[in-house]
Amino acid sequence: MSQHLQKELAALKEKIIYMGTEVEDRVYRATVSLINRNQQMAQAVLTGDHEIDLLEVNIEEDCLKLLALYQPVAIDLRFIISVLKINSDLERVGDLAVGIAERSSFLIDQPQITIAFDMAAMMHIVESMLTRSIESLVSLDVQKAYRVRSDDDRVDAMNRDMYALVKEEMAKSPEHINILLQNLSISRHLERIADHASNIAEDVIYMVNAEIVRHTPEFFED
Amino acid sequence: MSQHLQKELAALKEKIIYMGTEVEDRVYRATVSLINRNQQMAQAVLTGDHEIDLLEVNIEEDCLKLLALYQPVAIDLRFIISVLKINSDLERVGDLAVGIAERSSFLIDQPQITIAFDMAAMMHIVESMLTRSIESLVSLDVQKAYRVRSDDDRVDAMNRDMYALVKEEMAKSPEHINILLQNLSISRHLERIADHASNIAEDVIYMVNAEIVRHTPEFFED
Repeated sequence: MSQHLQKELAALKEKIIYMGTEVEDRVYRATVSLINRNQQMAQAVLTGDHEIDLLEVNIEEDCLKLLALYQPVAIDLRFIISVLKINSDLERVGDLAVGIAERSSFLIDQPQITIAFDMAAMMHIVESMLTRSIESLVSLDVQKAYRVRSDDDRVDAMNRDMYALVKEEMAKSPEHINILLQNLSISRHLERIADHASNIAEDVIYMVNAEIVRHTPEFFED
Repeated sequence: MSQHLQKELAALKEKIIYMGTEVEDRVYRATVSLINRNQQMAQAVLTGDHEIDLLEVNIEEDCLKLLALYQPVAIDLRFIISVLKINSDLERVGDLAVGIAERSSFLIDQPQITIAFDMAAMMHIVESMLTRSIESLVSLDVQKAYRVRSDDDRVDAMNRDMYALVKEEMAKSPEHINILLQNLSISRHLERIADHASNIAEDVIYMVNAEIVRHTPEFFED
């Protein structure tokens, strides 16, 4: 029985990692579509979300089946519960990638404006957080998970900067209001993806250490 | 053992319902603070989120303890898994209430502007969705849960209307850009609360029917 369970858990881990890389890929393509003004790439993200939705339901059903069938305890139980939660975070990141692709698709057809905000840098750090949160799951690396979590503040600060800048630019160039609103929305989507990456990291910490770190100040952790 | 479990499950249900009403109360006060321009009420929401965070961790620990201790199956297992998920949705709704209260607190000190958007109506439908999602949990009322879910489209439409209106108003009155941005942000927060209420309703449907309804078109359901 236990050997069967271990085999099933390994398969579940493979599935959630596959889902993670699929979602990562969508976030990457949504952001690159904007930077490179590539309409085809944006469209591919817009039409590809159904697969993620199916994966989410499939992984959730696996988790529930394993819980009912094997009644696991300790680390095995924590693993399944963490996968359940990571699964739901990843599905929401998939939705946010679609949201970015929608805004990118709109912006690609608009005149390009220059604002003093490094959107590519924000995209880079958020993608890196997502990648590292999934890596921390693959290798059960708690230190890596803590570092993902501590990057979240930088992303929040970037989003606040973007907000201040957009407000300023709107007053200066009212003809760009819509373009600026769409850019602000992308920044907010990125900020939410960073939140989900932090959630995933927290679930990895819980899985390994059996310790819930949500809502605890970060300076306790390193 | 089974009697013990049933007692524990009843206590867990009471706790999650308590959390639901606490979160509901915060959403209510955050929105009323804006409508009545009541700074004190906004501040109360801003300082009261820690209790929700503690409740969330406490309920999650209870769920994990019950899973490990009793290794429940069937409806009992589905109940615990649903509570785990509803718990995390409620905690996020609590965060969104804080977000609304922050914006409300800012707006209360600004000149009042008139826009052709019935924010109070949007608040009302979102609060009603949240209340009914929790009621559907109390009474395990699947029909009520389906109706919560079908209201989500109306809220999405309201949010889109708000966006179009804000864009228009910003171009007409650039001096109100910041006030309009804050109002738009409140509308978006409300839209996300409606999403979480739908998630809760979907979890109730899953709990009762053992059927995952996420990502299925609504016309299959009524």
